[in-house]
Amino acid sequence: MIPIQIGGRPLAGGRLPAVCAPLVARTRAALAAEAAVVAAKKPDLLEWRVDFLESIADAQEVLRAAANVRAASADIPILFTRRCQREGGQPIALTEPQVLALYEAVAASGCVDLMDFEMGNEPGHVAQVRALTRRHGLPLVLSFHDFHATPADAELRARFEQAQRLQADVAKLAVMPQSMEDVHRLLGATLQASRALAIPVISMAMGGLGAVTRLCGGGFGSALTFAVGAAASAPGQIPIEEVRAALAVLQRATSG
Amino acid sequence: MIPIQIGGRPLAGGRLPAVCAPLVARTRAALAAEAAVVAAKKPDLLEWRVDFLESIADAQEVLRAAANVRAASADIPILFTRRCQREGGQPIALTEPQVLALYEAVAASGCVDLMDFEMGNEPGHVAQVRALTRRHGLPLVLSFHDFHATPADAELRARFEQAQRLQADVAKLAVMPQSMEDVHRLLGATLQASRALAIPVISMAMGGLGAVTRLCGGGFGSALTFAVGAAASAPGQIPIEEVRAALAVLQRATSG
Repeated sequence: MIPIQIGGRPLAGGRLPAVCAPLVARTRAALAAEAAVVAAKKPDLLEWRVDFLESIADAQEVLRAAANVRAASADIPILFTRRCQREGGQPIALTEPQVLALYEAVAASGCVDLMDFEMGNEPGHVAQVRALTRRHGLPLVLSFHDFHATPADAELRARFEQAQRLQADVAKLAVMPQSMEDVHRLLGATLQASRALAIPVISMAMGGLGAVTRLCGGGFGSALTFAVGAAASAPGQIPIEEVRAALAVLQRATSG
Repeated sequence: MIPIQIGGRPLAGGRLPAVCAPLVARTRAALAAEAAVVAAKKPDLLEWRVDFLESIADAQEVLRAAANVRAASADIPILFTRRCQREGGQPIALTEPQVLALYEAVAASGCVDLMDFEMGNEPGHVAQVRALTRRHGLPLVLSFHDFHATPADAELRARFEQAQRLQADVAKLAVMPQSMEDVHRLLGATLQASRALAIPVISMAMGGLGAVTRLCGGGFGSALTFAVGAAASAPGQIPIEEVRAALAVLQRATSG
């Protein structure tokens, strides 16, 4: 069970799980305001979901937005994510090569600390994102999302391994459980991967059924949990204040 | 996933898990005081661990203690338990036939609402406790505790089934995990049993590693979690205020 490293330092001082709050504003002004409000709640990481930004096709505007988020972030590290529509993101008016160019420009700006890209994208595109993040010294999260179901154990395992094989710095799986048995399997696959992989893993089961994983996943090896600062980016996310309170109870009990 | 029924009514209005706080005082006076302090924290159930009572060999004194606990309990139902030494209880100066006589006397007193007996006791003794609790209209918890390890999946399953076969109204398993894999297996066995059995199940993994099960076990089918009112009765129990707070977060998130 390994914490996420950013700039050679463990996120959240190495505590598992660290807490990440998403930014989902649609305009640059709203994003800057959201970043300030959410940063004040002191998550360990901010995830800027750039696919929500209406002006995403204007690279200069995106770079100004990146600078705004950095300025408002109060030194909290920033995870930059274009979630693709196929995996639960917003529709955007960019081709994939344009998305790659945007990743390059944002990475070069120095305004973000970590990037997320779906491992299911074109292999050549994944390789390009891996190369550009490495060139700019940014760790890369390779992610997989299933908003409808929880894949079989063998596929969960294969997805974690795929991320590592593609040279991710962090492997992330988010699934939708249809039963508590699915939730149990996701926790088991996470524990197994956290033992087997050489990189940190992140996992969650989404929705109400899976909410328990957002609090207890850390014990089963998940390095990061997503919590609501101002607005949720996926179903089942819990307000950050409540996540912090429940994690504190768990942490005292576990070490007690 | 079935709640525990007491007097034909679901404990805690059917909420899973209900919260039980133990009473572990060594003298009758201290027990009455403990019951009042703990009842004020409003657990859904009080477990009176009579094996802690130094005067346990004096049946009249135990009956006076039972009346004291009842008077102090503020209408919170009372679970009566002599935990045997072999399964983590205190040493007592009673033979097993004397213990059975004590169960009979306490059941007849009307001062308790539910009784616990280890399913691993002499089969004839288990049958006697089943018969006397039935005669007095009290539901019976048949329990199994392993303070050293977490048995294999097949044994966990067999223990849940054994309780039902012995006509328990509730099956309870408490184990000591040596790893998070053990914790994961205990949750899986609980989920499986909660689907397969016709009676409510209770489970927990003890100690720091298992603390997560005291908060999240309800989602995996455990009908009851034990929390500290005044003093813990087993390793890993969390203060009731913290359990309530964390369960509230989980409940909002699960239904949200």
